[in-house]
Amino acid sequence: MLLFTCDYLEGAHEKILQRLAETNLEKMPGYENDPYCISAAEKIRAACECPEGSVFFTVGGTQTNAVVISTMLQSCEGVLAADTGHVNVHEAGAIEYTGHKVLSLPAYEGKMKAPDLKDYLVNFYKDPSHEHMVIPGMVYLSYPTEYGTLYTKKELTDIYAVCREYQIPLYVDGARLGYGLMSAAADLTLPELARLCDVFYIGGTKVGALCGEAVVFPKGNEPKYFITKIKQRGAMLAKGRLLGVQFDTLFTDGLYFKISAHAIGMAEMLKRELKDMGYTFYLDSPTNQQFLVLTDQEADTLTAKGAGYDLFARVDENHVVCRFCTSWATREEDMRELLQILKECRLASIS
Amino acid sequence: MLLFTCDYLEGAHEKILQRLAETNLEKMPGYENDPYCISAAEKIRAACECPEGSVFFTVGGTQTNAVVISTMLQSCEGVLAADTGHVNVHEAGAIEYTGHKVLSLPAYEGKMKAPDLKDYLVNFYKDPSHEHMVIPGMVYLSYPTEYGTLYTKKELTDIYAVCREYQIPLYVDGARLGYGLMSAAADLTLPELARLCDVFYIGGTKVGALCGEAVVFPKGNEPKYFITKIKQRGAMLAKGRLLGVQFDTLFTDGLYFKISAHAIGMAEMLKRELKDMGYTFYLDSPTNQQFLVLTDQEADTLTAKGAGYDLFARVDENHVVCRFCTSWATREEDMRELLQILKECRLASIS
Amino acid sequence: MLLFTCDYLEGAHEKILQRLAETNLEKMPGYENDPYCISAAEKIRAACECPEGSVFFTVGGTQTNAVVISTMLQSCEGVLAADTGHVNVHEAGAIEYTGHKVLSLPAYEGKMKAPDLKDYLVNFYKDPSHEHMVIPGMVYLSYPTEYGTLYTKKELTDIYAVCREYQIPLYVDGARLGYGLMSAAADLTLPELARLCDVFYIGGTKVGALCGEAVVFPKGNEPKYFITKIKQRGAMLAKGRLLGVQFDTLFTDGLYFKISAHAIGMAEMLKRELKDMGYTFYLDSPTNQQFLVLTDQEADTLTAKGAGYDLFARVDENHVVCRFCTSWATREEDMRELLQILKECRLASIS
Amino acid sequence: MLLFTCDYLEGAHEKILQRLAETNLEKMPGYENDPYCISAAEKIRAACECPEGSVFFTVGGTQTNAVVISTMLQSCEGVLAADTGHVNVHEAGAIEYTGHKVLSLPAYEGKMKAPDLKDYLVNFYKDPSHEHMVIPGMVYLSYPTEYGTLYTKKELTDIYAVCREYQIPLYVDGARLGYGLMSAAADLTLPELARLCDVFYIGGTKVGALCGEAVVFPKGNEPKYFITKIKQRGAMLAKGRLLGVQFDTLFTDGLYFKISAHAIGMAEMLKRELKDMGYTFYLDSPTNQQFLVLTDQEADTLTAKGAGYDLFARVDENHVVCRFCTSWATREEDMRELLQILKECRLASIS
Repeated sequence: MLLFTCDYLEGAHEKILQRLAETNLEKMPGYENDPYCISAAEKIRAACECPEGSVFFTVGGTQTNAVVISTMLQSCEGVLAADTGHVNVHEAGAIEYTGHKVLSLPAYEGKMKAPDLKDYLVNFYKDPSHEHMVIPGMVYLSYPTEYGTLYTKKELTDIYAVCREYQIPLYVDGARLGYGLMSAAADLTLPELARLCDVFYIGGTKVGALCGEAVVFPKGNEPKYFITKIKQRGAMLAKGRLLGVQFDTLFTDGLYFKISAHAIGMAEMLKRELKDMGYTFYLDSPTNQQFLVLTDQEADTLTAKGAGYDLFARVDENHVVCRFCTSWATREEDMRELLQILKECRLASIS
Repeated sequence: MLLFTCDYLEGAHEKILQRLAETNLEKMPGYENDPYCISAAEKIRAACECPEGSVFFTVGGTQTNAVVISTMLQSCEGVLAADTGHVNVHEAGAIEYTGHKVLSLPAYEGKMKAPDLKDYLVNFYKDPSHEHMVIPGMVYLSYPTEYGTLYTKKELTDIYAVCREYQIPLYVDGARLGYGLMSAAADLTLPELARLCDVFYIGGTKVGALCGEAVVFPKGNEPKYFITKIKQRGAMLAKGRLLGVQFDTLFTDGLYFKISAHAIGMAEMLKRELKDMGYTFYLDSPTNQQFLVLTDQEADTLTAKGAGYDLFARVDENHVVCRFCTSWATREEDMRELLQILKECRLASIS
Repeated sequence: MLLFTCDYLEGAHEKILQRLAETNLEKMPGYENDPYCISAAEKIRAACECPEGSVFFTVGGTQTNAVVISTMLQSCEGVLAADTGHVNVHEAGAIEYTGHKVLSLPAYEGKMKAPDLKDYLVNFYKDPSHEHMVIPGMVYLSYPTEYGTLYTKKELTDIYAVCREYQIPLYVDGARLGYGLMSAAADLTLPELARLCDVFYIGGTKVGALCGEAVVFPKGNEPKYFITKIKQRGAMLAKGRLLGVQFDTLFTDGLYFKISAHAIGMAEMLKRELKDMGYTFYLDSPTNQQFLVLTDQEADTLTAKGAGYDLFARVDENHVVCRFCTSWATREEDMRELLQILKECRLASIS
Repeated sequence: MLLFTCDYLEGAHEKILQRLAETNLEKMPGYENDPYCISAAEKIRAACECPEGSVFFTVGGTQTNAVVISTMLQSCEGVLAADTGHVNVHEAGAIEYTGHKVLSLPAYEGKMKAPDLKDYLVNFYKDPSHEHMVIPGMVYLSYPTEYGTLYTKKELTDIYAVCREYQIPLYVDGARLGYGLMSAAADLTLPELARLCDVFYIGGTKVGALCGEAVVFPKGNEPKYFITKIKQRGAMLAKGRLLGVQFDTLFTDGLYFKISAHAIGMAEMLKRELKDMGYTFYLDSPTNQQFLVLTDQEADTLTAKGAGYDLFARVDENHVVCRFCTSWATREEDMRELLQILKECRLASIS
């Protein structure tokens, strides 16, 4: 199947499966006290150059967002996010379920802007009735965003400066972190990211793992009783080894970055060739998600020919935005086949 | 290591690893819409003889309890449980986190009794101030219990009769379900269990899987919007295949029952030989958890000799209760070695 | 003091104080089981022409919104509101505290529009990922709105039609209900309102009472265990008589409507004379809240002369919107004095 | 009616009604920023001899408990209470609704004991699995208790010492505080109480007010953003004056204590005379709640003769516990009449 609908279509990187098999019968304590969780945390600290950092493993993205946000906010605080942010749209109200409002800021191709953030905060504290309003207590952003775009180092620095001025933590959702860091457009390294926020997570589910996200508090600044709070929110895995072994493998010999780079290579190939074919992109994404504007007819033809994409949005009566995702697992031959179909589709469309 | 501290020391049954590897590169939709989740659900329905049933997969036990209980209760309702019940003691307040009180009933070796339940309900509705009290809205019990004990068919039938009289659902926590059903003492089959409650889960984490629990609504009686509610509670796995493949394997050719039976065989061997050695048991458990009363000295000696157990409780100044768990993965040679150490320990203790 | 900052500056209508004094030493059961709560409910049902209706008394507006919304929604549902709606802005996240998202719709002078609502719902159910999104489960609107505006009967009918089509309840926040119904611009009666929604509340705090709101379920359609849920949310008053006596008085001989009409009379006088003076209004409010566009200098002069208003918003660098509220308690001589100050202020400004 | 069923049968003390009337038309800001709230807070600080203290006014007891407990606990913490504590039994799960477990301790006539508390905490931290359990984060006790009993200064000192050792706050529910402090058996003054806990509330609803409780943080130690959190929980009254005027009156010229003393005088009269008549008390209460053991026949006779009591509990097949409450409003002639009925009842019973 030529599925490019999302970046979690396959299982895990083969080295992960291999390590799971090799370590399978080792007896280990549960709840992330096993040697693999400990080793993985150590490797992640090294990769982030934050020796004082704390690392915790959770199972999925929505869960991670709910755990981090709900444990770092006071009850009357909300989290500021671009209005297209995952927490604001596609988590079934998981943040509100924990009692917190998502305060939305304007999004520009998925990104918030530091001046908008600053304005929000300035106006909030100017408002004489702000004691009766949700207090902005955290900033959430995705790197890369839900639109595949990336914050530049300058943009992130500016946003973090506002956060520090108002003493509110900055949280970076890195569900696709590898695909951001390995983009040619990225001017940020992992250690730089770790210095430019207060907490972030390194996505495993979308980057080579069966499941799992690694939450990093670069300054060892996790909330009090964090383990108990993870457990209380149902996010603690009994067999923490499943997460430990996976992240230990991903952070051995740079595997996480290598497989991320592969996805980027595939995306660039797609992008380059489609531009040559004359396709229009909805926006210029430098990462593994590519958004194509197609006519309804083109989209239908693609479906008929077996090419799977994600129907992202409708542009107008005759056009839709179709998202194509590459991943660590995308095979070059599949990409070539997809491109061939897209080419035919284009030719049919022009003629 | 001679660890018998719990039943989640190892990874997964080898057939599960094998199937994960075989299916690894198949492209599948996420969120439990993959063919393995669908197939596993079908096999579970068959095993439960509930063709109308609904099956959902979640990741861990505490999470499952929180999801099921919070979605089946009205906001002002609480869940009745034996005061030793897992939800009441060892879930870090996960149920209360969802807004619901755990209403505790007396526990007898981990079990509640139907007459106590009935009394609670009778007295509740007699109390003129009951509108100002938490309404009992569900009954929770574990099969087997946290003490390794089992409800008889008669006991469960009686409890369920009370539930039906008061129109409150009965929920069975089956974290160790296989170890209950395969016990020689069990007079219940899986289909019978499915008929004697409104919802239950089949534990995977403790019975051969890396993670995962299968929630069964035998009458297709899941709450409205259940998928969205699972997502909202952070309990939806993106790569549902991880759960689907595991449960599909466990419910192929009766694997779940076979590996459960193995654990029971090991536990019976332990029990029989220790009785012969003159050891005292804290209670008579017919399942995979065995509770030994040891002197502090015996317990220390065991530790020194490398035998790992779970320090369950203190009996008096000189005695403790040590829990030994067998599992699907327990090797007979390890059991023999443990027994040898216990024998030496006993001899030293007597002399 | 010439305060016009809000509509809860004074205590209660004198008849209420008198009735509280007269009934003060009568011994009555608590928790709204007293004869005055019962009588008030009966009178409200009569005034609403909903003999099958249920009436409950709560203490304040934010509390009432949280109680009604959280008891009528499923856990994964959110409430649709104009983005200027009180629940979305000025309740410190009280709705999110109960676990529910406020889903915002565009606001036009405080009002939502039926077509926007319809579009939201159509698009929601078309979205292939809607199972991962907050389900729209209720519509909230204010009558009058936070901007003093009123829905016409036609507008409300259209909104309610969409609600019924999608089977989601419509909830009307009537914190200032009297000031809406008594407006010359209102083409709705109380019984008509009761037929055009599923639940609403009649505001007491802002219309003559010391505190208290009357929640009306016109079809007797309150959620199961509603009394217990009110109690659980801390919204049940022990001495329910305080609410009962007040609403019984307000709904005797049409007092609620008479005192509301007085506020409207005062607002119309303000409006008429200010228009004559050449003042600009931010919008055309037909109720007791009037929004004036003033220069910063005019606003400062007013303050200096002792006229109190609510600084509502900033228009541009030199202009602000100032809100003046009338109420059941506004004295005509105070209004005349305010007008005199505004006149002087205007003359100074022009010259 | 000879109702003695509870201590909130009447409205408010006449001086309160008088002050409400006198101040009724004064224009004041809302939300406890009015001069009466400010003055009342000042007087309460003086009465408590805690010049650094903070005072906030809320509307009712259950609400107050939910606000205080939920704002002072971390999400994974629970509140320790005697198992008969109001928060554990009669608040419809209001504490759990905020996400926190009530951890129950044995109750002795309504009181917890310091050694039990200490044991709980010692055992909790000894338990190797305590990270998976609800962390005890606060101690709640009622003064007087729900059984009318009082902690001695020594008992409270001992409990507070344990709290300080474990660095968990002590919260005293003073719904009936006046009736405790004015008891002949009380060896505590209000300033002493304020020094022996971290937060408490002075009950108004049951002691002379129409509604209202005054929350005192003796060391100015209220949680961050407390006003916003009160608002978020629906506990902020728009017309805060209603609370301010009432508490200002109650704390002027010692009114709160005088009217409390009256209730105690009435309770002592009841107690003394009933003892002379040979009645048996369920326990020895030194405050305004008196618990009588009656035969069913006696209880029925009382009812038939128009004497209202609260059916508190059943002792055995033939006996019940009936609670009689006095209050600030109890009239001596009503008490005499009640005593006369009880005397007749007793004579009939003996003969």
